[in-house]
Amino acid sequence: MDPTRSGLYTDFYELTMAQGYFCSGKKDVRATFDLYFRSAPFGGGYAVFAGLEQAVQSALAFSYSDDETAYLKGLGFRADFLDWLGTFRFTGDIDAFREGDIVFPDDVLMRVSAPVIEAQLLESMLLNIVNFQTLVATKTMRVVSAARGRAVMDFGLRRAQAEASMAATRAAFIGGTAGTSNTLAAKNFGIPVAGTHAHSWIQSFESEQAAFSAYAGLYPKNCTLLVDTYDTLASGVPNAVRVAREMEGRGERLRAIRLDSGDMAYLSKRARAMLDEAGLGYVKIVASNQLDEHLIESLLDQQAPIDIFGVGTRMICACDQPALDGIYKLCEVGGSPTIKISENPEKINNPGRKKVLRYVDRQGKFLIDALALEAEAESCLDLIRHPTVSFHTTAVQRPAMRPDPVFFPVVRAGRLAADFPGLKTSQAFARERFGLLPDEHKRFANPHVYRVGLSEQLYRLRQTLIEERRRHG
Amino acid sequence: MDPTRSGLYTDFYELTMAQGYFCSGKKDVRATFDLYFRSAPFGGGYAVFAGLEQAVQSALAFSYSDDETAYLKGLGFRADFLDWLGTFRFTGDIDAFREGDIVFPDDVLMRVSAPVIEAQLLESMLLNIVNFQTLVATKTMRVVSAARGRAVMDFGLRRAQAEASMAATRAAFIGGTAGTSNTLAAKNFGIPVAGTHAHSWIQSFESEQAAFSAYAGLYPKNCTLLVDTYDTLASGVPNAVRVAREMEGRGERLRAIRLDSGDMAYLSKRARAMLDEAGLGYVKIVASNQLDEHLIESLLDQQAPIDIFGVGTRMICACDQPALDGIYKLCEVGGSPTIKISENPEKINNPGRKKVLRYVDRQGKFLIDALALEAEAESCLDLIRHPTVSFHTTAVQRPAMRPDPVFFPVVRAGRLAADFPGLKTSQAFARERFGLLPDEHKRFANPHVYRVGLSEQLYRLRQTLIEERRRHG
Repeated sequence: MDPTRSGLYTDFYELTMAQGYFCSGKKDVRATFDLYFRSAPFGGGYAVFAGLEQAVQSALAFSYSDDETAYLKGLGFRADFLDWLGTFRFTGDIDAFREGDIVFPDDVLMRVSAPVIEAQLLESMLLNIVNFQTLVATKTMRVVSAARGRAVMDFGLRRAQAEASMAATRAAFIGGTAGTSNTLAAKNFGIPVAGTHAHSWIQSFESEQAAFSAYAGLYPKNCTLLVDTYDTLASGVPNAVRVAREMEGRGERLRAIRLDSGDMAYLSKRARAMLDEAGLGYVKIVASNQLDEHLIESLLDQQAPIDIFGVGTRMICACDQPALDGIYKLCEVGGSPTIKISENPEKINNPGRKKVLRYVDRQGKFLIDALALEAEAESCLDLIRHPTVSFHTTAVQRPAMRPDPVFFPVVRAGRLAADFPGLKTSQAFARERFGLLPDEHKRFANPHVYRVGLSEQLYRLRQTLIEERRRHG
Repeated sequence: MDPTRSGLYTDFYELTMAQGYFCSGKKDVRATFDLYFRSAPFGGGYAVFAGLEQAVQSALAFSYSDDETAYLKGLGFRADFLDWLGTFRFTGDIDAFREGDIVFPDDVLMRVSAPVIEAQLLESMLLNIVNFQTLVATKTMRVVSAARGRAVMDFGLRRAQAEASMAATRAAFIGGTAGTSNTLAAKNFGIPVAGTHAHSWIQSFESEQAAFSAYAGLYPKNCTLLVDTYDTLASGVPNAVRVAREMEGRGERLRAIRLDSGDMAYLSKRARAMLDEAGLGYVKIVASNQLDEHLIESLLDQQAPIDIFGVGTRMICACDQPALDGIYKLCEVGGSPTIKISENPEKINNPGRKKVLRYVDRQGKFLIDALALEAEAESCLDLIRHPTVSFHTTAVQRPAMRPDPVFFPVVRAGRLAADFPGLKTSQAFARERFGLLPDEHKRFANPHVYRVGLSEQLYRLRQTLIEERRRHG
């Protein structure tokens, strides 16, 4: 069973709070929680939203077996609460961005409106799924954009965080990979699978050439030879050239060689020259070995003739920032907007039940996002305000700025409001949306900050609540 | 179903190689692979081995359903190979360190000896499980050691890498956590569960004090109040003090307050003073918010009066190095030792079927590890050599140095050779073993390097094979 569908896939405090709501007679009070993040990962200017389908499917399946309520009984939970928990089903509403959309800090990625006890119980699971998949999809989009049209293959299984390899491979595909080595994920999610052989294949033969020949004999249509087991330029590439010629003699073509250690810029240039000199211009070069967006950018800046990048650990583990700081905050309860102040000013949330508006230019390029209260009419929105810097405002100029719908109903009263588009569609959507993000927000170094502001009404509500809370505590 | 038990939980190339061994008539050639890592994570001096039980259980359960072989058929695999794959069961031997032992770069953590096709098919799965759990157990041991006896709770679920939260919580417990917020993991692995309430609990009441009172009424025996929703010192702590006095009136005791934002050193000292002044010296202080071993060390160096640390993201995601570089290398095939040279000298493996010897002093403190060939008698081992620096040698001086068994049979002919000790035993074992590691290897900054050397015989074998390979390629 998928553990994320167990009602116990949660931080324990969700359960103690749930019993608290139950015992205080507040369990059915309607509440709204916002799921959002506070800063773009990897020092970048954007994120790629992913994980929605799995998060929603888990929300709709979330429940407690007898065995699970028995466990909670042993921890001291009350019988009447556990009876209720045994019948738990999510009955609320979820609105969200579409998977693959480009999102920014403070955008409400998912909005959950439900009886407070239900919305609370989903918190940890939703964050666990969305934080990770959004992180990996974003990292992959960065890697794929650095590869400038060359294919990026996901080779991360062996270093992936245990079973998270499955979710990671899915998210990486949304972010733009051409395929994966993770065979189970490929099967489950319908992703193209890829892979050739390891050093052990070579070592299990008396010679590298014998190992290459055997492999080419077995896989004439899709043969990639790993050339660095003994010495890339002195042994690996010359042996690959010999085998490519044998293949030509049989009317076949060697597909590629793979470099997996050493200096990739130097070795790819030398290998390319050796292949070309042997009339093997069609043989592609695959590079793998601790690649990320920065290394790929550098290799291509050096004109390294690499055709395909096999990217593992640094993409699938999002090594330079392995966690997205996504949070899930109560913004309305019993019809009243709520706020949290905290010691850290950036941790103040935006109160009230909100929607996200994205303004685009005539070409559809993204200009600015605005959070507005659910009841506000878009046509009345004239000014978008920075959440904290009062003189930072943007006037909405129509028709040069038009709203592009980004926030959709996904679940209504505990039922799917629409079908999920499927992973290939989400990948294509992500690529299309990425194309609409102005380039200055895509820079790896000091990207231009994309603005997510507040409607005038939301801004005032926020200020009022902050003042009130500071007076009354 | 646990995905790691599917035969498809593998990099695709294991399958293309497996078919290759099958078609070349080499599938039953006996081979040995070593699972080891090349550098200690987090710039540290050691690792805590974890993941063995799950890795071995998955190895013994690894198999291919009809549905899975049908998928491979669609990818073009041969019918005779798939027939064989449908009957796949691991029939080989596994030797390993015990879970929780302290291990070092180049130590053979697991040794798999089996028909080459079987040992090859397990590679990705074993690495996926052992790399991640060893990484998290190691990170946790660092955090726990920094806490100097104070309890460390795992609060990482919401930022954990999707379903890897389960394995992470397990590994963190081996590394020394006192409990976890991850309720499903707590249930499945028998780990103590912990947690109180979130900001949303406070926000769902009209006032912080009303929320505290309600919570204390519900959980009089285990009440921890989160004091930073509005203002820690002006509102949170004073309200907690009021509620603690209400509790005293009922003969109850507030257990703790939790700080979750702001400067933890400053706030914990001020909060401690306020609690003590109110005669609440028994109320403990819990701190959470982006903690890791370095922050905890700094807080305790500043005499922050914190009793319990709630550690999340940075521990469970091992943020400063989210992947262990564990690898799985063929070291013997058909009775002959094998070597891989590669462009990067540190990637040369140690050939031959080996065992690990750990020498300890009279008090049992670890002195040095030695890799020796399986057939070597320990009593004949006089000199331990550095793998590459020829003049670095250590003489084995008996009885001041005695071998402590670290490497055990786990699987024999596809069956468990011994029961697993259980998670609590592994946690106690890890703590005991950590106590036997000299302190200079535990430093966070520039730890003294623990030596893992080669027996004279293994050193010579390695040199000979390197020479041979450089001559013949």
